[in-house]
Amino acid sequence: MIGGMAPRTLHVTVPDVDWVDRLADLTDVDLTVWDFSSPQPERHVDLAVRPYTVAAAGLDALDPARLGVIQSQALGFDGVAETLPAGITYCNAVGVHEESTAELAVALLLASQREVDRYAREAGQWNRRFTASLIDRRILLLGQGGIGGELVKRLDGFGAELVRVASRRREDDRGVVHGVDELPSLLPTVDVVVLAVPLTDDTTRLVDDAFLAALPDGAVVVNVSRGPVVDGDAVVREAGRIRFATDVTAPEPLPPEHPLWSTPGVLVSPHVGGMSSAMQPRIERVVRRQVARLLDGLGPDDVVLG
Amino acid sequence: MIGGMAPRTLHVTVPDVDWVDRLADLTDVDLTVWDFSSPQPERHVDLAVRPYTVAAAGLDALDPARLGVIQSQALGFDGVAETLPAGITYCNAVGVHEESTAELAVALLLASQREVDRYAREAGQWNRRFTASLIDRRILLLGQGGIGGELVKRLDGFGAELVRVASRRREDDRGVVHGVDELPSLLPTVDVVVLAVPLTDDTTRLVDDAFLAALPDGAVVVNVSRGPVVDGDAVVREAGRIRFATDVTAPEPLPPEHPLWSTPGVLVSPHVGGMSSAMQPRIERVVRRQVARLLDGLGPDDVVLG
Repeated sequence: MIGGMAPRTLHVTVPDVDWVDRLADLTDVDLTVWDFSSPQPERHVDLAVRPYTVAAAGLDALDPARLGVIQSQALGFDGVAETLPAGITYCNAVGVHEESTAELAVALLLASQREVDRYAREAGQWNRRFTASLIDRRILLLGQGGIGGELVKRLDGFGAELVRVASRRREDDRGVVHGVDELPSLLPTVDVVVLAVPLTDDTTRLVDDAFLAALPDGAVVVNVSRGPVVDGDAVVREAGRIRFATDVTAPEPLPPEHPLWSTPGVLVSPHVGGMSSAMQPRIERVVRRQVARLLDGLGPDDVVLG
Repeated sequence: MIGGMAPRTLHVTVPDVDWVDRLADLTDVDLTVWDFSSPQPERHVDLAVRPYTVAAAGLDALDPARLGVIQSQALGFDGVAETLPAGITYCNAVGVHEESTAELAVALLLASQREVDRYAREAGQWNRRFTASLIDRRILLLGQGGIGGELVKRLDGFGAELVRVASRRREDDRGVVHGVDELPSLLPTVDVVVLAVPLTDDTTRLVDDAFLAALPDGAVVVNVSRGPVVDGDAVVREAGRIRFATDVTAPEPLPPEHPLWSTPGVLVSPHVGGMSSAMQPRIERVVRRQVARLLDGLGPDDVVLG
């Protein structure tokens, strides 16, 4: 298709008027606002940028005859395969949230180790005591995808030994990446576990009573993957012996009466790994790249379905 | 003195019985407990390890005829010069607290940027909103001593540009270290300031109304140096526009009714930079090294006075 095509105008929808302003410099692009909650545009849409915070629900009503590509602003796409009509291409947001999510994981981990959450809650009390640290500790990083790589960069300078674990054992220029089958022997040797795995059948409830029981007293588990990777009831049972800091829960939102909120040694943030000032410039770069590819007659990048 | 000396026994005091147990393997050393609050031992003490958390007060009553070297467990030594009798050597704890203090600075900074302190205070509320991040930001590190170097290591992987400032401009293999005289032009260009300077006449109230006014809206100031480096009243006046996270205050302890505790956007920890699990192995290594030097007839390392 390259070369022979006449110049044409790409029809792109964006979820709000701010997006129209940001992309106003684009040429050969007709930009309109559609937030996926109003009816699908009558005209054919080449590329539809989805709102960031929506559930997968609603995709099943889309007409594939009038919609080419959906660009999600999220990295995860749980539930999309079950609802997306055949004929529509779905792209996730690669390179948009990994750095920000890894940053939040380190923020939660450091807050938990150095008890910053306690200082915030006990404001007014000058209550000094020794805390844990990352220095001289072993940190197990479970998941070596985009977030895992950004975790390695950020944790490298903290004087800890990083123990990388992925689905299968391999070696790279940093050394060994252990396989998940090695977890039973690794868990008793580490002080920290950071979970950055995708949600799959294999990772659902990966962190259960047996996983937590294998960790030494005082260990910390940080979860920035997906809530169902961890059995929340097991965490409540092991709290006191194990600390836990998580940006994701099951369910979400976590109801106000859920025991995780009030369990000592548990710190919860409301799924804000990607919700930082780093997001907008990165998702905008993704959308601009996809527009350029479609105008060039190429397929979009980062297709996960369709 | 090297070579000709007969083997002798070094008289070392330590602040508690746990220290006696930890050093029990030392040979040619007579270990006794003295915590500086009971009367000075009648026998001559070659090396006295001071308790970690004591005020400088009390040193003026020491008899230099019966005391050779004091090993402090702290890095700072404010007030010691004014009270230490002539003839006693005072050593600070170099290499013991720098890593831990830099770690806490990053913990406070990340908590402040990603609002982890708010999540801790608002437990039970699923209140998502976008926050600041370190990604793409400029971080000014004021002070290039031991803590400053450890800050650089830890902040290197966070996707921020590090702007290093010391008392005088110089260059090293990382690039330029700016001089403090460049602060007026640098401050408006940075998003974060981390203070890791010693307390001197020049740094007392260095961060005042004019310093804070030069920072852009939304900037964060983190202080892990000494409380008097910052004018706390100026912080209270600028809070709302500038955020502030500090491990040190003036005075310490910060009284419960002090406005810093309750000012929005201000996070206070109770001077616990060095109070982590990293401390004990490091101060023990320092004491063992000093014992070995004294047994070898050498002077102690890290003498700051005497």
